[in-house]
Amino acid sequence: MKTFDFYFDFGSPAAYLAFTQIPKLEAETNSTVNYKPMLLGGVFQATGNHSPATIPAKGKYTFIDFSRFAKRYGIPFQMNPHFPINTLMLMRGAVGLQRTHPEKCLTYCDAMFKAIWVDSLNMNDPVVLGKVLSDKGFNPTDMMALCGEQSTKDGLKAITEEAVARGVFGAPTFFVGGQMFWGQDRLEWVQEALKNQ
Amino acid sequence: MKTFDFYFDFGSPAAYLAFTQIPKLEAETNSTVNYKPMLLGGVFQATGNHSPATIPAKGKYTFIDFSRFAKRYGIPFQMNPHFPINTLMLMRGAVGLQRTHPEKCLTYCDAMFKAIWVDSLNMNDPVVLGKVLSDKGFNPTDMMALCGEQSTKDGLKAITEEAVARGVFGAPTFFVGGQMFWGQDRLEWVQEALKNQ
Repeated sequence: MKTFDFYFDFGSPAAYLAFTQIPKLEAETNSTVNYKPMLLGGVFQATGNHSPATIPAKGKYTFIDFSRFAKRYGIPFQMNPHFPINTLMLMRGAVGLQRTHPEKCLTYCDAMFKAIWVDSLNMNDPVVLGKVLSDKGFNPTDMMALCGEQSTKDGLKAITEEAVARGVFGAPTFFVGGQMFWGQDRLEWVQEALKNQ
Repeated sequence: MKTFDFYFDFGSPAAYLAFTQIPKLEAETNSTVNYKPMLLGGVFQATGNHSPATIPAKGKYTFIDFSRFAKRYGIPFQMNPHFPINTLMLMRGAVGLQRTHPEKCLTYCDAMFKAIWVDSLNMNDPVVLGKVLSDKGFNPTDMMALCGEQSTKDGLKAITEEAVARGVFGAPTFFVGGQMFWGQDRLEWVQEALKNQ
């Protein structure tokens, strides 16, 4: 079975767009994704990169660009007024679930992405976060405990460091073997690389 | 006749890639390009944006990404060891020719792009620049005089300011009516916008 790596952070609108297209990509290429939750803020810090939103003209354009792709994909998308979201706890949740309840991780990721990029929620607010978790069948208290475990913290740090070591500087980033592809607008290239593998 | 605007700077490898595809784009959409030579350094200064090359990991990847597109387009491309090139005089040359010898402008632009992104020449060296100009039938002394004219200087400044006012923050940037598209990887979107016009 072919596999590819998908490095993401819930705080990235481009990662959300790519995330929605992964099941289709897997089906079309008969491959399986390795979800790699990383902390984009850590990647930015390590590489000196910044969000496009830090340049006003670029931020304005990227929203239009993402909206065009969302329309093409036929998926809902809107900018989050609380952007940028501090995703440290949210990403730790994904890493913790991968270790303890891998079968629940995809549901969790989907809930986090949609809360931010479809429902425009303020996921920095513990009450809002708690409600999203409960609605999807996660116990908020258990999730907070999982996020606080040292192995969860270490796990997120390890994936983020691994990403930087492989050349990642933004999100989403894909790897097909040794080939790296940055951006939700490179899905077609990821597909081609998988087909040629 | 449909038209679209193409803002570019010879110093941008992405602008070179896009430039090579414009005749095909015009033919497929039955449209005509408006070449808009701008000073990318001025755009960066006005918008706070920077070249991706300022982030080492991003610079390394973008070269791979550009090489992949060059291969797909079937065109030669290599990074220029003298990058970044100060393109002030080169862009003034394009603006000056548009005013005085518009029929020669495309030949000039093609020569500048190829000197930098195919032949890896140091176009900051007046001797090298002079030879490229002579080889293409331009008189280097005449070109320098043209670049020094106030209306040439003002012309480049005006296009650069116009670009920034329209929301441009990088190169290449296309406009189809009021729709802006940034990047050589948005050619397909430009084509679609022209077809729907």
